[in-house]
Amino acid sequence: MPSYTPPTKDLQFVLHDVLKVTESKTPGYEELEPDFTAAILDEAGKLTSAVLAPLNAVGDREGCRLENGVVYTPKGFKEAFEKVKEGGWTGLDMPEQYGGQNMPYVIGTAVGEMFSAANQAFTMYQGLTHGAASAILAHGTDAQKDTYLPNMVSCEWTGTMNLTEPHCGTDLGLMRTKAAPQGDGSFKITGQKIFISSGEHDMADNIIHLVLAKIEGGPEGIKGVSLFIVPKFMVNEDGSLGERNGVTVGSIEEKMGIHGNSTCVMNYDGATGYLLGEEHKGMRAMFTMMNEARVGVGMQGLAQADVAYQNAVIYANDRLQGRAVTGAAYPDKPADPLIVHPDIRRSLMDQKSFAEGARAFILWGASMIDAAHRADDKDADGLVSLLTPVIKGFLTDQGYDMTVKAQQIYGGHGYIEEWGMSQFTRDARIAMIYEGANGVQALDLVGRKLAQDGGKHVMAFFDMVKNFIKDNAGEDTEFDTAFLDPLKAASKDLQSAGMYFMQNGMKNPNHALAGSNDFMHMFGHVCLGLMWAKMGLAAKNALAAGTGDAQFYKTKLATGRYYMARQLPATALHLTRIQSGADTVMALAEADF
Amino acid sequence: MPSYTPPTKDLQFVLHDVLKVTESKTPGYEELEPDFTAAILDEAGKLTSAVLAPLNAVGDREGCRLENGVVYTPKGFKEAFEKVKEGGWTGLDMPEQYGGQNMPYVIGTAVGEMFSAANQAFTMYQGLTHGAASAILAHGTDAQKDTYLPNMVSCEWTGTMNLTEPHCGTDLGLMRTKAAPQGDGSFKITGQKIFISSGEHDMADNIIHLVLAKIEGGPEGIKGVSLFIVPKFMVNEDGSLGERNGVTVGSIEEKMGIHGNSTCVMNYDGATGYLLGEEHKGMRAMFTMMNEARVGVGMQGLAQADVAYQNAVIYANDRLQGRAVTGAAYPDKPADPLIVHPDIRRSLMDQKSFAEGARAFILWGASMIDAAHRADDKDADGLVSLLTPVIKGFLTDQGYDMTVKAQQIYGGHGYIEEWGMSQFTRDARIAMIYEGANGVQALDLVGRKLAQDGGKHVMAFFDMVKNFIKDNAGEDTEFDTAFLDPLKAASKDLQSAGMYFMQNGMKNPNHALAGSNDFMHMFGHVCLGLMWAKMGLAAKNALAAGTGDAQFYKTKLATGRYYMARQLPATALHLTRIQSGADTVMALAEADF
Repeated sequence: MPSYTPPTKDLQFVLHDVLKVTESKTPGYEELEPDFTAAILDEAGKLTSAVLAPLNAVGDREGCRLENGVVYTPKGFKEAFEKVKEGGWTGLDMPEQYGGQNMPYVIGTAVGEMFSAANQAFTMYQGLTHGAASAILAHGTDAQKDTYLPNMVSCEWTGTMNLTEPHCGTDLGLMRTKAAPQGDGSFKITGQKIFISSGEHDMADNIIHLVLAKIEGGPEGIKGVSLFIVPKFMVNEDGSLGERNGVTVGSIEEKMGIHGNSTCVMNYDGATGYLLGEEHKGMRAMFTMMNEARVGVGMQGLAQADVAYQNAVIYANDRLQGRAVTGAAYPDKPADPLIVHPDIRRSLMDQKSFAEGARAFILWGASMIDAAHRADDKDADGLVSLLTPVIKGFLTDQGYDMTVKAQQIYGGHGYIEEWGMSQFTRDARIAMIYEGANGVQALDLVGRKLAQDGGKHVMAFFDMVKNFIKDNAGEDTEFDTAFLDPLKAASKDLQSAGMYFMQNGMKNPNHALAGSNDFMHMFGHVCLGLMWAKMGLAAKNALAAGTGDAQFYKTKLATGRYYMARQLPATALHLTRIQSGADTVMALAEADF
Repeated sequence: MPSYTPPTKDLQFVLHDVLKVTESKTPGYEELEPDFTAAILDEAGKLTSAVLAPLNAVGDREGCRLENGVVYTPKGFKEAFEKVKEGGWTGLDMPEQYGGQNMPYVIGTAVGEMFSAANQAFTMYQGLTHGAASAILAHGTDAQKDTYLPNMVSCEWTGTMNLTEPHCGTDLGLMRTKAAPQGDGSFKITGQKIFISSGEHDMADNIIHLVLAKIEGGPEGIKGVSLFIVPKFMVNEDGSLGERNGVTVGSIEEKMGIHGNSTCVMNYDGATGYLLGEEHKGMRAMFTMMNEARVGVGMQGLAQADVAYQNAVIYANDRLQGRAVTGAAYPDKPADPLIVHPDIRRSLMDQKSFAEGARAFILWGASMIDAAHRADDKDADGLVSLLTPVIKGFLTDQGYDMTVKAQQIYGGHGYIEEWGMSQFTRDARIAMIYEGANGVQALDLVGRKLAQDGGKHVMAFFDMVKNFIKDNAGEDTEFDTAFLDPLKAASKDLQSAGMYFMQNGMKNPNHALAGSNDFMHMFGHVCLGLMWAKMGLAAKNALAAGTGDAQFYKTKLATGRYYMARQLPATALHLTRIQSGADTVMALAEADF
């Protein structure tokens, strides 16, 4: 049975040594003193390791069960959900007005990583609710907010997002679900939605579905899509629950992983719905929560990679097999533990340097979302908007690869369900797909975000990297060589790729899009390179100051050196591929595949 | 429900246009005329697509069931196994003396690819039998061969290989299973073996277990391991089945994939066993079949990648989503099919260029095994021995990645079991683990094979590449630029890596082993690059001669150009990593992970 140790020390390092949150001007950050955040993280950590992690395998094994229209969650989920609610964790970064604690999103994200790592399928019930509540918060009327938010913030009621239909996912313009106005301000919603996470279950009194549908007679395609609130039970004026609405679960999907979450086919048969936001502006309303949701999914990539890594380390230290090539490390044992072998080290270092780099990247992203929302910082908003597809696409692709590496450490036992490593890869697999498949993220990055506001945000990113290097070079040759030089080279590769797109994408956009996946990955590497340079600097400074745990900082530097030497150079390969253009990619006729 | 189209045309292309099998001096190859091999491949292809492929999902869904010591295979497996036996497919490349058809291994491999692609879990029952029969053929006495081989060649009896124990897999020196001599030439075998594929099932009258065990009083560690034949039912002198032997199935494992194959815990409680080969030379006997088995597992990596690719192409052509960035490709349809999008193309081209390159690599390897076995060609034996870990490790790592890419094309549907794409990845995952986890393959390559016979075989490989380039350069600038130049650069990278190992591995072997995984992958890329250059040349020549299907050859060239431009340059990244040495890999103390 796998275990989970909350990475609270590492989260604290990123918040305080690297991001220096208390020095930020973002409102609310001044309260984030180390003792305060430590208390929150420790408390959340205890809950995740003691309550949620032990249920992870249970959820996988039992899955959800549909009987007579009722979906039953796995044994223990209900009780655990009660504990999560009691602790106030569901409203951590929600407004006090609706029962939340009004903490910055960066804290919600740090806590969220631990929740996701301990039990991704379970955490999705509250995650989807958070997303739906955010949309109501951003686009709802005061009456809607008052009606739904208090119960959603507390997770007495949960939420869902209904986008996909059998014939359309990415291309929502093809949507068929209809909304017919009833003359009283409400609509009748009719259609079928699929892949609805937490669509129906037994852990909440009510479920608030946010549903995309087309109002009859509206514009064609994506421009005619509106967003609706469709409660499972109607809500009376006094807030009590009324009649059952015309929305039912058709079936639950049998999936590769996240079995503990009920993924439902939802049928809307003239269900009563209420417009959320403006008519025909449903995509805009949906995108508000989608950016946040995409950062959250990127975090899932990190989370599964980290818990899988932790267990790989335990196994690599326990399992005796072979001898170190440089001579027996433990001559008193019948064999040495796996961890003495260089190729096992290589794999563990890949995982460790990814997880820690990704953690910094995610929290940096979350801090920019806070700056955008709490301080109306347009630059932060632009930059995090640029980086959102990178956070989602790169961290989930890489996160999945890392779970596969962790599973591999277990040899044959990695393939046996009982050991739990298979579940990490099966659960991690979905993150590459949902909230926009990673190919769509790459398309969003290269086709839209790169040129947004005249390319201002990508230029700002390059300037940030350049300035960081300039400000910190020349003081410590070893640091320059190990950290700053590789970062400079990788950033230059990324700029060359951008230049290639500019010069060739005009003539033929395929030259840009054929390199979109490579660009997303090289951008991710440069971001993690930047994070490692910042973490390396923070660790170096702490060592020089003689504060804190010296071994922790030395390990941080060593892990960073690994990333810079072994992972960051991937940018050169991505650049080579990008510069080979679209010709070989698009050469075949459809019939020749 | 996924489908499978046997790649008979492509197999014929490799056998005849590329390998030119009939021109080979290997005995038996002179019979392999195109019409003859086409007849075999077509017949096998029909069986695999019509009978085995439809059972693939059934096997995954139902799995195997253990009841009162009896293992039941999924519905339909028994009937399908009868058809495979009736067709004589189980003894295709086995000696006529024992009921086989004595075909070269290269034909067995070509047929085997289709069997594995259609239904990997099912095909393992005969695959393990083939491996066990090969070991008896190589090391058994005449009496043993006569007793076991006829029924194993026909698969009336199936076989297993018993190596792993709960506490040891790779490091078999730690083995605890004991063999006690009985004075009559037989032994009593006692111990527990795990992960025994096809260990117990209902499709054969008898199961012949090959079991590694230590004879009491023998040498310590790996040098005291012997190999034994342990039949499930004793075989009487007249060949009839006698008493049940003391071997029983303890449980069947719940695995991530290959559910249709029964993976068993086998308990030997004083079971009667017969020494196969010499005392204490069990590892040598096991390795005879292990090389063959490893090539077979490499083939599984290709097979799953190919069938997954085929279905990804179907979906990419069917699923309408979005519009081509260069303007609607199908303005009469509500949206364009996925296949118009450059990033979808990129993924499909990755898959296609891998599968076709891997197919050539596998068949080239098989032809060298034939040359070694049938013509006693020592050079071929040395080269295929060098390449075996590359075939196994590279093709299964990459093959798995390709199934993940194919699954990704399906978006959300790729995660739903009903669509079958999840099974391809779950089944493909095991190939990276069994028959020596891929880290062990990389260790075998760098730690043993590279320096074998004074490095003679790797030198021969480099000479082969050099000569191929020299012999074919200068006639066609486009071919030189697209194929030969990239091959030259990649081969140079590989040589530089070998040089780095020589110069630094002496001082500290960790400098070599920390790069072993990268070396295995760069070697694989160079091999596929060589295959693509050879296939490109064959296609170019056929086009020039005006023979055959011009579109097929043009497609082959275009696919090759893609591989050379987009995949082969990965060697440079691997070299960078290798040349960064072991310092960053080994920097951490065990407690710091």
